[in-house]
Amino acid sequence: MVRKPTPDDKFSFGLWTVGWNAQDQFGSNTRSWLDPVEAVHKLAELGAAHVTFHDDDVVPFGSSDSERDKILERFKGALAETGITVEMVTTNTFSHPVFKDGAFTSNDRRVRRFGLRKVLRNVDLAADLGADTFVMWGGREGAEYDSAKDLNAAHDRYAEGIDTVAAYIKEKGYGLRIALEPKPNEPRGDILLPTIGHAIALISTLEHADIVGLNPEVGHEQMAGLNFTTGIAQALWQGKLFHIDLNGQRSIKYDQDLVFGHGDLFSAFATVDLLENGFPSGGPRYDGPIHFDYKPSRTEDFQGVWDSAAANMSTYILLKERALAFRADPEVQEALEAAGVLSLAEPTLAEGETVADLLNDRSAFEDFDADAVGERGFGFVRLNQLALEHALGARG
Amino acid sequence: MVRKPTPDDKFSFGLWTVGWNAQDQFGSNTRSWLDPVEAVHKLAELGAAHVTFHDDDVVPFGSSDSERDKILERFKGALAETGITVEMVTTNTFSHPVFKDGAFTSNDRRVRRFGLRKVLRNVDLAADLGADTFVMWGGREGAEYDSAKDLNAAHDRYAEGIDTVAAYIKEKGYGLRIALEPKPNEPRGDILLPTIGHAIALISTLEHADIVGLNPEVGHEQMAGLNFTTGIAQALWQGKLFHIDLNGQRSIKYDQDLVFGHGDLFSAFATVDLLENGFPSGGPRYDGPIHFDYKPSRTEDFQGVWDSAAANMSTYILLKERALAFRADPEVQEALEAAGVLSLAEPTLAEGETVADLLNDRSAFEDFDADAVGERGFGFVRLNQLALEHALGARG
Amino acid sequence: MVRKPTPDDKFSFGLWTVGWNAQDQFGSNTRSWLDPVEAVHKLAELGAAHVTFHDDDVVPFGSSDSERDKILERFKGALAETGITVEMVTTNTFSHPVFKDGAFTSNDRRVRRFGLRKVLRNVDLAADLGADTFVMWGGREGAEYDSAKDLNAAHDRYAEGIDTVAAYIKEKGYGLRIALEPKPNEPRGDILLPTIGHAIALISTLEHADIVGLNPEVGHEQMAGLNFTTGIAQALWQGKLFHIDLNGQRSIKYDQDLVFGHGDLFSAFATVDLLENGFPSGGPRYDGPIHFDYKPSRTEDFQGVWDSAAANMSTYILLKERALAFRADPEVQEALEAAGVLSLAEPTLAEGETVADLLNDRSAFEDFDADAVGERGFGFVRLNQLALEHALGARG
Amino acid sequence: MVRKPTPDDKFSFGLWTVGWNAQDQFGSNTRSWLDPVEAVHKLAELGAAHVTFHDDDVVPFGSSDSERDKILERFKGALAETGITVEMVTTNTFSHPVFKDGAFTSNDRRVRRFGLRKVLRNVDLAADLGADTFVMWGGREGAEYDSAKDLNAAHDRYAEGIDTVAAYIKEKGYGLRIALEPKPNEPRGDILLPTIGHAIALISTLEHADIVGLNPEVGHEQMAGLNFTTGIAQALWQGKLFHIDLNGQRSIKYDQDLVFGHGDLFSAFATVDLLENGFPSGGPRYDGPIHFDYKPSRTEDFQGVWDSAAANMSTYILLKERALAFRADPEVQEALEAAGVLSLAEPTLAEGETVADLLNDRSAFEDFDADAVGERGFGFVRLNQLALEHALGARG
Repeated sequence: MVRKPTPDDKFSFGLWTVGWNAQDQFGSNTRSWLDPVEAVHKLAELGAAHVTFHDDDVVPFGSSDSERDKILERFKGALAETGITVEMVTTNTFSHPVFKDGAFTSNDRRVRRFGLRKVLRNVDLAADLGADTFVMWGGREGAEYDSAKDLNAAHDRYAEGIDTVAAYIKEKGYGLRIALEPKPNEPRGDILLPTIGHAIALISTLEHADIVGLNPEVGHEQMAGLNFTTGIAQALWQGKLFHIDLNGQRSIKYDQDLVFGHGDLFSAFATVDLLENGFPSGGPRYDGPIHFDYKPSRTEDFQGVWDSAAANMSTYILLKERALAFRADPEVQEALEAAGVLSLAEPTLAEGETVADLLNDRSAFEDFDADAVGERGFGFVRLNQLALEHALGARG
Repeated sequence: MVRKPTPDDKFSFGLWTVGWNAQDQFGSNTRSWLDPVEAVHKLAELGAAHVTFHDDDVVPFGSSDSERDKILERFKGALAETGITVEMVTTNTFSHPVFKDGAFTSNDRRVRRFGLRKVLRNVDLAADLGADTFVMWGGREGAEYDSAKDLNAAHDRYAEGIDTVAAYIKEKGYGLRIALEPKPNEPRGDILLPTIGHAIALISTLEHADIVGLNPEVGHEQMAGLNFTTGIAQALWQGKLFHIDLNGQRSIKYDQDLVFGHGDLFSAFATVDLLENGFPSGGPRYDGPIHFDYKPSRTEDFQGVWDSAAANMSTYILLKERALAFRADPEVQEALEAAGVLSLAEPTLAEGETVADLLNDRSAFEDFDADAVGERGFGFVRLNQLALEHALGARG
Repeated sequence: MVRKPTPDDKFSFGLWTVGWNAQDQFGSNTRSWLDPVEAVHKLAELGAAHVTFHDDDVVPFGSSDSERDKILERFKGALAETGITVEMVTTNTFSHPVFKDGAFTSNDRRVRRFGLRKVLRNVDLAADLGADTFVMWGGREGAEYDSAKDLNAAHDRYAEGIDTVAAYIKEKGYGLRIALEPKPNEPRGDILLPTIGHAIALISTLEHADIVGLNPEVGHEQMAGLNFTTGIAQALWQGKLFHIDLNGQRSIKYDQDLVFGHGDLFSAFATVDLLENGFPSGGPRYDGPIHFDYKPSRTEDFQGVWDSAAANMSTYILLKERALAFRADPEVQEALEAAGVLSLAEPTLAEGETVADLLNDRSAFEDFDADAVGERGFGFVRLNQLALEHALGARG
Repeated sequence: MVRKPTPDDKFSFGLWTVGWNAQDQFGSNTRSWLDPVEAVHKLAELGAAHVTFHDDDVVPFGSSDSERDKILERFKGALAETGITVEMVTTNTFSHPVFKDGAFTSNDRRVRRFGLRKVLRNVDLAADLGADTFVMWGGREGAEYDSAKDLNAAHDRYAEGIDTVAAYIKEKGYGLRIALEPKPNEPRGDILLPTIGHAIALISTLEHADIVGLNPEVGHEQMAGLNFTTGIAQALWQGKLFHIDLNGQRSIKYDQDLVFGHGDLFSAFATVDLLENGFPSGGPRYDGPIHFDYKPSRTEDFQGVWDSAAANMSTYILLKERALAFRADPEVQEALEAAGVLSLAEPTLAEGETVADLLNDRSAFEDFDADAVGERGFGFVRLNQLALEHALGARG
C-alpha cells in the first residue's frame, strides 16, 4: 500500500479541480460547485499542503467589494484553521463572455483594459495571501481563423500586458513571480504561446523577464504530441520552470485533465524522475510545490472527487519511490555510463580549445573513422527497460 | 491558367527534393538520385531562381578532397550556365550511422566533434558559393526514451555547437546567418527544439543570437498540430524568420513533404497572405526566397518530379494573386475594421499612461459593463468566409 | 459572387447549430438558446430546405405531455408556414447527468431502459413529422478508463438497443432508417464505434442491419486523423451512407464544429466531388440532404450566426461548381486515364477466370518484369494539381 | 527480477523485427540484415516459441526456384534444430517499386495480378510450414491524393483479392485463416482499411468471411488516437481477433514500432489484462500466440537487438502477473461491482420482454426519477487507481 501524503510532500491543488461542477461541452453539471472552505478542509485532511485558485473560484464574478471582503475573510479562516497555505493565485480571464476574444489580446481595447485591471486586482490578493507564484493562462488569447487576429499586434499586446503586471509587482515590492501557462488549443482553435517553447521565446523579449517564467501542464504539451519531460527540461535549463501542473492526458485529443498517472504513465515516471532526482549530471532543479490541475471525471460523485484527489498524491508518491530506486541502482548507473548519458556534460570543445584548434585536430575529422564509430551500440533499449522495470517495482 | 514563374519570384528548391530517390521506410527506391547538375538546369528551365543543398547532396559522404573539388567545379559550372544561385546551404548530420544519436548532442563526444567539423567545413562552402543562409536541421538530436539523454547537458551542447559555428562565421567575416529548423519528431521519437517556439527560446540564450534565427517548415509545425502561420508570425515578431520551408502535410502523421498547397490549402493561403501582404497594421516583413522543401511522391517518375516542382510554384503564384486581391477588397478592409483586427495595434495603455493612471480609470473596471461589452459580435466568421471566397477566386 | 441557395439544394441544418447558446467547456454562454420557431423562419429565408433536431432542442427535457404538445404544435406551425421539412430527428442521450455513463451502454440498467424509452418516444415523433432518417449519436457510450466498461457486454447492449429500435420502426411500419454517428472521443475519453469503420462493423451483426446505416461527420473522422472522403466512400460502397454531417475541423484536436470548408478546404472539395459526381467509374451515389452540423463560433452575435449559416451553403455551392467543372475537363479525364484511375474498375481476374487459370498465366508472374513495370509513373501529383487548380477556380 | 520466458508463453517474433537493418527514412542502415537462421537460433535461446516472416524476409525477391528451395531447406533445418515453429506467414507487397501504388488495389491491373500471384505462392509456403495464420498488411493500398483512386473500385478490388486468396485456401484444404492488418497511414498518405473497424466492415461483405479476421497492431490503432484495447475488444466480440501484433507507440506520429510497453504502458496493462483474463463477465477469448512486431531502435547494435527482444517478453510476463493479481483482488471485484461493470452483461430488456412490455413499464420512463438516478457516482476513478496500483505492483 502507498504511504499517506503529508505537508512535507508539498502537494497543492487548484480549488477549481476538486470544486468543479462537472459540466462539459456536451452536458450539464453532475455535481454542484464545491464551497472553497469545504475544499480546503477536506484537502487538509487528505494531506495536501497548499491550495491555489482563480479569483472567481472564491469570489464570484461581479461580487461587490463588501461581499468580496466577507467571502475572503471566511476563506482565510479556513486556511488558518487547517494550516493550508495559498502558494499560487491565478485569474479567470476566459469564462465571462466579455473575454470571448481574449483579455490581453482581445481585438476590443476596452476588454484589454478591463482584463488588465482584473489581473492587477488579483495580484494584490495573491500578495496579500502570501502566494509565491502568479499564474497566467491566456486560454482565450487566440483565434479560430487566420484573418481574425493581427498576430504582430497580438504579440505586442501580450507582451505589454505581462510587462505591465510584472512592473506593478516590482513597484509594489511583492514577492511574486509570474508563471505563464502554455496550451496549444481549446477553447480557441489556436492559442497564442501554444507550447513551453513559444512562451519562453516571448519571455525573452520582456523588460521584466527576470520575474516571468512558466507553469507547464502535462496535458497541454501532450495535446501537441510533445514530450512533457523534455519540455520542462528545457524550461529548467533556461531557468524558467517556476511552477508545474500535473495531470493526465491520453494522446492528442480534447483537454482531458485526468488524474496524474492516469494518462501516459511511463512518461509520468520520467517527469517525477526529473523533478525528484534532477538531471543525471546535475544542473538546475525544481523545488516548488507539486501542483495538480485535473478534473474529477463527470461520472463521479463527491466520494469520487476525494478518491481522485488522493489518487494524484498516491501515484506521485509511488513514482517518486520508484524513481529514487531507479537512480540508486548500480546497474542503472552502469547502463547510463555505457549509453554515454553521463558523458554528454563534457563540452565538445575542451577547456580553452579554440575553433582553430578543433580545425587542426585531425582525429576529429581527417583521421576519424565514421564507419567504425557508427557501429557503437548505445544500449538505450536496455536502459529504458531498466527504467520500465523500476517504474513497475519489479527490480526490488 | 496560372502564369509561369520567373526568377523575380525568388523560388528556390532543395536539390534533395527533386533529386530524391524515392526510397522510404517501407520500400526501396523507385527512382535514382538525380544528378545535381541536371537538377539545376531543369529547375532553371521551370523558372526557379535558386537552389539549396546539403553537403552530401552534391559531394557524396567520404569523397576525397580531389573528388570534392572536381564535383564542385562541375556544379559551379551549372550555376554559371543557368544563372541559378545558391541562397542557402545545409549540412547532413543525420543520414550516416555515425549520427544515429545526433551530431551536436550525441552521447559520444567524438561524434560531436566530427559533426562540428563537418558543419564548419560546409560553412566555408556556403560562404564560397555566396549563400545568405546556413540552415541547421538537427534531425537526430533527440531520443526515443526519456532516460537516454541528459537533457540539461544536451541543451548545453546544442547551444555550444551553434555558438561555435556562429562565432566562426563572424570570425571569418562571412555574410551568413544561421537558421535552425525545428521538427517535433521523426526520425527520432522526440527531437530537441521541436517547434518554432522552442528554437527561439534556445536562441535567446546564445552569445551570438544576433545571427541565429529560424527556417520553419510548414509540415513540421503541423506535425505538432500547430498553426504554421501563427508560428512564423511569432518568429517575424521576434525578428527571427530568416528563411522558410514551404510544403504540404495532411494532419498529424509522418512527415509527408507534399507539394505546397497539397496539404492544408486554406492554411497555405494564410501563409502566403502573411508573406506577401505582411501584418494588417504593418510590422516586420519576410523578404527572403520562397523555398520549397518537399518530396515528389514515390509513385512518380521524372515527369512527375518536374510536374510536382512546377506545381509548388503555380500554387504559390495563384495564392499570392488571391491574397493581394483579398487585402485590396474594400469589403475585406471594412470587415477587418469591424472585427477589431485593425485596432489591436493600439496599445492597451495610452501613451504615457501609468499603471496608477489605469488603476484610477473607473471606466476600465468599476464602471465597466462587462455584460454589455460581452455582447459584441466580432464577425470573425464573415471575415473568414471573405478570405475563403477570395482564396477560391470567387469574388472577382 | 456565389449564387443564393434554394430548396433544390436540399440544404439542411440542425436546430442545435444556429440555436447553440455558445457555452463551452471553459466559459459561459455568449448567446441565448434560439427559439426553434425563429430558427426555422430564418433558415427558410436563407434558402435552406430542411431542419433536424434532438428531442430536447425543441421540447425541453422533463416537459409535461401537455407542454410538449403545445410546443410541437407551434413548431409544426412554423414548418407549415415556411415549407421547411424535417428530414431527420435525433435523440439527446448525452446532456442530462443521468446519461453520464451512456444510455444504451450505461453500467446502470435503469438508465439503459430509460434511454431506450426516450429514443422510442422520439421515433414516434420522427415518424409523425415525416422524417426519413433517425440519427443516433452515442456520445456518452464509452469510458475514460480501461477498467470501467465490460467491452463485450457493452457491444452486446449497444447492438441490443439499436436492434430494439429498428424492430420497433419495422413493427410500426415507419418509413425511417437509423443512421449511427461515429465519433472517436469527447465528451468521453474513448467512445464506442469511434469511426465509420467500427460502426459498419457493428451493423453487420444486427438482426435489422437493412435499415441501419451511417451519419458520418467530417470533423469526427478528422479527429482520428482519418480521410473523411475515403471514409464515406467505404460507407457508400457498403450501402451504408444514409445521411451526412458536414462541418469543418482543423487537425486533430477538440471537436471544433466549424463552418463547412473552414477546416480542411481541399478535403472538402474532394467530399463535394464525391457527393456530386460519384465515383469515377460509377457505383453507389448519395442522394440525401446536405446536412450541416456545425457551431457558430462563441465570438459571434446573431448576425454572425446567420452569416455562418449562409457561409456553409455558399461554400458548398462554390465547391460543387468547381467539382462539376473538374470532372468535365477533358484534361482531367485524360489525366485520370493516364493515372490508371479509370482502369481500377476492371476486375483482377477476367470474367470466368479461375484461380487455376491465374496460376497458369505465366505473364502474371514467371514472365512478369517487376522492375520494368515498377518504373511506371502514375502522374498522381499532376492530377492532384489539376484538382487543386479547379478547386481554386483557376482553370476556367 | 522477471522470470524467463518459456515456449509455454507462446511468444512469437517476426523475422523482420530482430532482423531489421535499421535503415530509416532519413538515414542509411546501421546494422546488416540478420540471417534468418541465426535469428531462429537466438530467439529459441531467449525463450520464444515461434517465428513469423514475410516471404522476402527469408527468400530475397527475385530468387530463382532452386535458390528458393535451398534457402527454405536450410531455414527448415533451423526450425527443426530449435523446435521453433512458424505460426504465421505474411507477404511483402509493399517494398518493391512495382507495388508503389499497392498490390490488390494498384491502378495497374498487371500489378494486381502479380500481387495476387505472389500472395498465392506464399499461401502454399505458409501451409507447407504448418502456419495457422496468413497475415495481409496492405501497406501500399491507398493514396496520398483524393483524386488518385476510384474508391469504389478500390474496395471492390480489395475484396476480390482477399476472397480469391480465401477461396484458394479452402480449395486446397489448408488449415489457414487470413488476418488483415489495419493501419491508417504511412507509407501512404491514407491507407485503405485504416482501423480495426474498417477492416471488419469490409470482411462482412466477403464471400469467405468465415476464414478472414484481423491482426491488429498496437501502434497502428494508436496512430489514429484510438484505444487499442477497445479495438481488439470489438474484434473479439465480432469473432475476428485471429492474431495480434504487440509493440509500443508514443502518441500520434510516425510508426515507431517500439518494444511492447515502451509506448503507452498503462494501456499495455489493459491489453494484457484483456488477453489473459478475458472480459469481466466472460465472453470470447484470445488464445493465439503473443506476437511482437517491433523494431529494435536504430541506435542499437546486435546486443541491443537481443536486449530488446527479451524486453518485449519480460514486459509481457510482468504485466500478465500484475493483471492476474488485479482481477484476483477482492477489493477490485468489489469496485467492479460497485461501478456497475459486472451488471452490464444483463440485457436491457428482460428475457421474453417485448418492446410493448417496455413501453408499458412506467418505472422505466414516466415514474423514472432522472435527477435522482443521475446522482449515482460510478467510482471509475477509484477503480482505475486500483488498476494503476496493481500495474505498478504496489498492492502486493
